[in-house]
Amino acid sequence: MAHVTLNFESDYLNQNEQVEIILPDKERGIPGETFYASGKKYKVLWLLHGTYGDATDWQRKTRIELFASEKDMIVVMPSGLNSDFVSWPKFAMGYDFPNFFVKELMPLVQNWFPASDKREDNFIAGLSMGGHGATQLGFAYPEKFAAIGCFSYPLLNYRARANGDALDGKLPEMSTRFANQVANYGTLEDFLKSGYNTWDVYFDAKKRKNLPEIHFYIGEDDFFWEAHCEMKKEMKRRRIKNVPITEYPGLHHEWRVWDMAVEDFIRKVDPETVGAGMKN
Amino acid sequence: MAHVTLNFESDYLNQNEQVEIILPDKERGIPGETFYASGKKYKVLWLLHGTYGDATDWQRKTRIELFASEKDMIVVMPSGLNSDFVSWPKFAMGYDFPNFFVKELMPLVQNWFPASDKREDNFIAGLSMGGHGATQLGFAYPEKFAAIGCFSYPLLNYRARANGDALDGKLPEMSTRFANQVANYGTLEDFLKSGYNTWDVYFDAKKRKNLPEIHFYIGEDDFFWEAHCEMKKEMKRRRIKNVPITEYPGLHHEWRVWDMAVEDFIRKVDPETVGAGMKN
Amino acid sequence: MAHVTLNFESDYLNQNEQVEIILPDKERGIPGETFYASGKKYKVLWLLHGTYGDATDWQRKTRIELFASEKDMIVVMPSGLNSDFVSWPKFAMGYDFPNFFVKELMPLVQNWFPASDKREDNFIAGLSMGGHGATQLGFAYPEKFAAIGCFSYPLLNYRARANGDALDGKLPEMSTRFANQVANYGTLEDFLKSGYNTWDVYFDAKKRKNLPEIHFYIGEDDFFWEAHCEMKKEMKRRRIKNVPITEYPGLHHEWRVWDMAVEDFIRKVDPETVGAGMKN
Amino acid sequence: MAHVTLNFESDYLNQNEQVEIILPDKERGIPGETFYASGKKYKVLWLLHGTYGDATDWQRKTRIELFASEKDMIVVMPSGLNSDFVSWPKFAMGYDFPNFFVKELMPLVQNWFPASDKREDNFIAGLSMGGHGATQLGFAYPEKFAAIGCFSYPLLNYRARANGDALDGKLPEMSTRFANQVANYGTLEDFLKSGYNTWDVYFDAKKRKNLPEIHFYIGEDDFFWEAHCEMKKEMKRRRIKNVPITEYPGLHHEWRVWDMAVEDFIRKVDPETVGAGMKN
Repeated sequence: MAHVTLNFESDYLNQNEQVEIILPDKERGIPGETFYASGKKYKVLWLLHGTYGDATDWQRKTRIELFASEKDMIVVMPSGLNSDFVSWPKFAMGYDFPNFFVKELMPLVQNWFPASDKREDNFIAGLSMGGHGATQLGFAYPEKFAAIGCFSYPLLNYRARANGDALDGKLPEMSTRFANQVANYGTLEDFLKSGYNTWDVYFDAKKRKNLPEIHFYIGEDDFFWEAHCEMKKEMKRRRIKNVPITEYPGLHHEWRVWDMAVEDFIRKVDPETVGAGMKN
Repeated sequence: MAHVTLNFESDYLNQNEQVEIILPDKERGIPGETFYASGKKYKVLWLLHGTYGDATDWQRKTRIELFASEKDMIVVMPSGLNSDFVSWPKFAMGYDFPNFFVKELMPLVQNWFPASDKREDNFIAGLSMGGHGATQLGFAYPEKFAAIGCFSYPLLNYRARANGDALDGKLPEMSTRFANQVANYGTLEDFLKSGYNTWDVYFDAKKRKNLPEIHFYIGEDDFFWEAHCEMKKEMKRRRIKNVPITEYPGLHHEWRVWDMAVEDFIRKVDPETVGAGMKN
Repeated sequence: MAHVTLNFESDYLNQNEQVEIILPDKERGIPGETFYASGKKYKVLWLLHGTYGDATDWQRKTRIELFASEKDMIVVMPSGLNSDFVSWPKFAMGYDFPNFFVKELMPLVQNWFPASDKREDNFIAGLSMGGHGATQLGFAYPEKFAAIGCFSYPLLNYRARANGDALDGKLPEMSTRFANQVANYGTLEDFLKSGYNTWDVYFDAKKRKNLPEIHFYIGEDDFFWEAHCEMKKEMKRRRIKNVPITEYPGLHHEWRVWDMAVEDFIRKVDPETVGAGMKN
Repeated sequence: MAHVTLNFESDYLNQNEQVEIILPDKERGIPGETFYASGKKYKVLWLLHGTYGDATDWQRKTRIELFASEKDMIVVMPSGLNSDFVSWPKFAMGYDFPNFFVKELMPLVQNWFPASDKREDNFIAGLSMGGHGATQLGFAYPEKFAAIGCFSYPLLNYRARANGDALDGKLPEMSTRFANQVANYGTLEDFLKSGYNTWDVYFDAKKRKNLPEIHFYIGEDDFFWEAHCEMKKEMKRRRIKNVPITEYPGLHHEWRVWDMAVEDFIRKVDPETVGAGMKN
């Protein structure tokens, strides 16, 4: 596959943004004039990193380029700091990831690169914080994505957690993070009513019927395993069926999970396309 | 010169950080074993970008590598978002640029790369927001830097401005930015007493006597020109002399200024070293 | 401007190729949907590096991004090793730069990026070996480029030099290089009849009338100065007039020349466009 | 892990060279001053790409960073074109990979980065052409490397192949490539006597006793499988035992092999070190 590192200034982030992009690769022997001028628009996977990460993570730590090549799929990997992929109007001059994503990055990629803008050709996924981000963006813009891949981040019942003073889950850094996030939204109630609280969106039957299909992947030793089981229990209680869930025994919150998850997700959302495959 | 793009995780930023670094270049014909094993530690310029920018700006928009080569000077260019190079504990999981800079980046560069850690070999500079950042860091850690280069950002009398409700100066985005920054510090008084308010630090005679030498550069059509003149007036009033100030007629807040400023600053702070020069 | 590092596999080079690309930048405040979906195709400068260099040189050592921004011009900077930008069929599995350039790189950029493919919107330039490369490509494909910028590399009378055993000019490394290049073409006569010998192409009146306009730039202390004067003498002898030639007193074969040359060349070949200009 | 992209000029390659480097990562919570100033020198894996590839391949297409993190191992990945990692004096101004590697790259990394220069801490490996390269370099400089990893490239009996006019093996591009390589060495006999012909080096008992330990990995559907079996037959004939060979059923000449091979190789050559592991 071809590889692009793109750096451009965003109005919504108020800064330069680095984005890593994988583009389709011409098979050997096909003339460049034919291949590049075909007018073909390719499917796109929008892929988000986790806490502590950035745009370079997926390429450095998984075989994403190998998997994408088997489907000729464009992959777009932006940087989102530790923003949880929401807007932070009170940070610096404002850092608004969602508007950056849908009003700047998507138009750029779908117009300046050979990327399809059809719903059925666009998928969004992420790991950990990025799984939450993919879910938030997929729920907020269901007309833009055919499927969501949520790796190692179950829907969390923030309302229940907030009542129990347990917003911080099992991670020591979480207390500060959630306190900051609640302040970012205003009040706890503002926070709980926002798109951040994906549990409430998903388990509202009226909202759910319009959402993209969502695929969950998680290691059975993940610190989110218990929360994952709560989510499944709620699905059962509400008789929600046929949600594709993949669980990996013996694995925790780690890159080996995300490497397998992204391979499987790509194959499931695009079962038919046969890409050029990875050259050697 | 050799060029390095470094990406590493910072505890204080809670994220991956990209840093662009220029390293000395071996002259042609000198054996690699001799050159790289010499044990020589080179001088270092720490160079900060402005609002909207990032680590890549200086190399893309000026001839910094050319100027550095004439002195065999290492140049280190980190990314600082629009943070004003201060700590934002309430953003995400916390983003603490000053501690990142002195407790992670400086130790990494001065131990893992052939960089001197002596005060007389270290200089810090920046443009616009980065000039302010260089001043803040140079004032806070005067034992680490021999000189400061402040390009297109005069010392601003924030106290006077705050009283006059004019913290936003001439830039439309500034109102939000300053409101956010004041909230970041707590109260207006906290803000004014902080290291952010470099005017108060510099014009305190007791503090000033320990500070690194500071060099100012500005275009005469810069929107900060009036503020620059206020600063000079205050210097005169207090009989502060021999401050190196360079003013460029006909130029505004722009890259042509910063290209000339960084060239001049490097020559002034290191007048004697003759580097290998830029190869072609 | 936006910045792209592109890496893709070339059939003609038989390897991955890195290309640095500068793309137009959206002005602040213009909606992304409007800007990126406009369908506008921008002018393109194809810019070649010199001996010892690569795709990264122009951005690291000049202000090319600043100058391009003043015209909203796309700039494409490939890597060409020390190939002289010709084909080396006997190296490894073959390294064919000209076919890579016109049959792969140009179609990719003009189809996958918002670049114009009209002759009047395409310009090619380079420094030293890259000036020679720009001349060779511009002469070989005159239907593709409106103008050529040749920096610090005059048309060289290889035939006269060959007879005088002086193919190596003033540079010590040149003997090996020219011996290798002659062997690459087969015989000395094959070499002299090839497109490499741009002197013979240019001073053939029939061929010259179809060539793109060519602009020369050189420092008066360049080691090619004498050869440059020979070229001018030959132009005078043949009454060739109005060739734009810029000479810089006191400068030699160096980056300060190429920074000024590329700024001037861009302004001359596109005198009317007013670009967004460099943001700060 | 930390990631470095290094670009520097090489005297032996006569050009800028890009090298991708993975450096150890500080565990969260350990002070930067402690970690970076420890003086520790880390083990190093020198890792070569295959035909058509470059320095970026290993990171883009495998999980090398994940595997390296489990051992805190530095990984250095240079670009070698399709040179077969030998010297090409007749290409351009000369392209001498072996001298670049041992006289420039190794001194730079072992002096400017926290890398050990002890034999027992240095390993060299590669895939396909890079496996051949690793073998050639490991055989030529046995005092520098403790082990060689040769992935999907068996020792080839070039002498037998040359007699049978079958130097091209099964790959269509090979005829040109071998013809060029023979010409590069001078005569066929020069070629067969060179270090390129690793079969003859390895099966010379006197030479073999000083060589680093060599590990072979290959897919059972690889087009080199038959040649691999010939190599094993020759080992048996000569009663060479205990060579670590790993064969993967159902896999061919492909990245899935190399991902598994490099993971296994790192674990075998450094069985004891427990690295920080990949953060998430």
